[in-house]
Amino acid sequence: MRISELSTAAGLPVATIKYYLREGLLPEGVRTSPTQATYDEVHLRRLRVIRALIESGVSIAETRKVLAAIDDPPQSPHLLLGAAHAAVLPAADDTIDTAEAERLAERLGWQPGMCDEHVLSGLARTLQSISRTGFAVPDDVMDVYLAAMRDLARAEIAGVPTDSPEAAVRYVVLGSVLAEPLLLALRRVAEQIASAERFAAAQSAAGGSTAAPDPTAAPAPTAAPD
Amino acid sequence: MRISELSTAAGLPVATIKYYLREGLLPEGVRTSPTQATYDEVHLRRLRVIRALIESGVSIAETRKVLAAIDDPPQSPHLLLGAAHAAVLPAADDTIDTAEAERLAERLGWQPGMCDEHVLSGLARTLQSISRTGFAVPDDVMDVYLAAMRDLARAEIAGVPTDSPEAAVRYVVLGSVLAEPLLLALRRVAEQIASAERFAAAQSAAGGSTAAPDPTAAPAPTAAPD
Repeated sequence: MRISELSTAAGLPVATIKYYLREGLLPEGVRTSPTQATYDEVHLRRLRVIRALIESGVSIAETRKVLAAIDDPPQSPHLLLGAAHAAVLPAADDTIDTAEAERLAERLGWQPGMCDEHVLSGLARTLQSISRTGFAVPDDVMDVYLAAMRDLARAEIAGVPTDSPEAAVRYVVLGSVLAEPLLLALRRVAEQIASAERFAAAQSAAGGSTAAPDPTAAPAPTAAPD
Repeated sequence: MRISELSTAAGLPVATIKYYLREGLLPEGVRTSPTQATYDEVHLRRLRVIRALIESGVSIAETRKVLAAIDDPPQSPHLLLGAAHAAVLPAADDTIDTAEAERLAERLGWQPGMCDEHVLSGLARTLQSISRTGFAVPDDVMDVYLAAMRDLARAEIAGVPTDSPEAAVRYVVLGSVLAEPLLLALRRVAEQIASAERFAAAQSAAGGSTAAPDPTAAPAPTAAPD
């Protein structure tokens, strides 16, 4: 198909496709004349992957690295996972103290050598950034975070297909990156549901609804008791 | 303290602090002369919150909205959560089909009216973006995602302090936004641990290590069987 047809099929402007071609994200089409080239299903599938990565907040440079891991995958799924993580994480920071990150990782079953440095240093950076704000995740919430992420990771890794390398690559690289916004979106929905369950009565009362306030509900924090 | 001292205390260049002042993220100090102002602990704490939000990938405009929710909180924690989510999400998209998002939300306990539109439409957008790539989250993995996010959200919302509005605001707004990179960082660590547990033997064999290959381990996907 011509670039205009590819544009229609992908739902993307021709200028965007040309931008991806210039950035080396999309392979060139087959030249049919000095000014024309044809594209096929491979280009369309690749465009959808590029689009999903970029809409997930992955940068052009990171997208290039994720695509490189798909095109030239390392030998084992474990190294492949490292490549996918490396693509979306900043380089490991040698100067950061990873002691607290390692303590949390141990509660996930970590032993030295199991994780790439940049993954542990990414966790350490996040912990540092949170603690600087004076905000602390309560211990019992952290327990639930760890249990939830352990369950989730085990289910994900158990599902890595080993019969086809192409399927393993797509599953590991796309699954680890594309599921990030999905998980955050599910968490927001789950938070609003849990919040409605806990605070809805207080909210209706505060909003002047005719629903009777639930006397057991927490008070809406309008008067400052501290 | 003077702006140079605030800069040292916060570990941020004076130019960055001036930028946050110009952007209206940081309140002005108390003028002591036409060219000087003094700052206090409130400014330092606010700088740390701004920094953590921006390092979490929140934009300047979104940071301004998160800070507005902290400074002028809605009456109930439930509305506050909505404000925190609204600050970091694009506006609700009326044209997107939320049917699949609602089906997933129902499995989290959702009933109509429990969630803000932009939270459901955010989930729908994520699902659409993933399905366009041809990648699908396997059903059993999705089951684990839903269970994990439900447990996590319930623990988070159960912990919302109701004794002090200031504490509730910090917990809800910062907790919902700052925990996002923490959860993703924990997931990456947990994935690498689960992957090491499943594939480490295959990896050592592929890497030419002297460790004996585990005959029960999955083969490294080098030969393409499909």
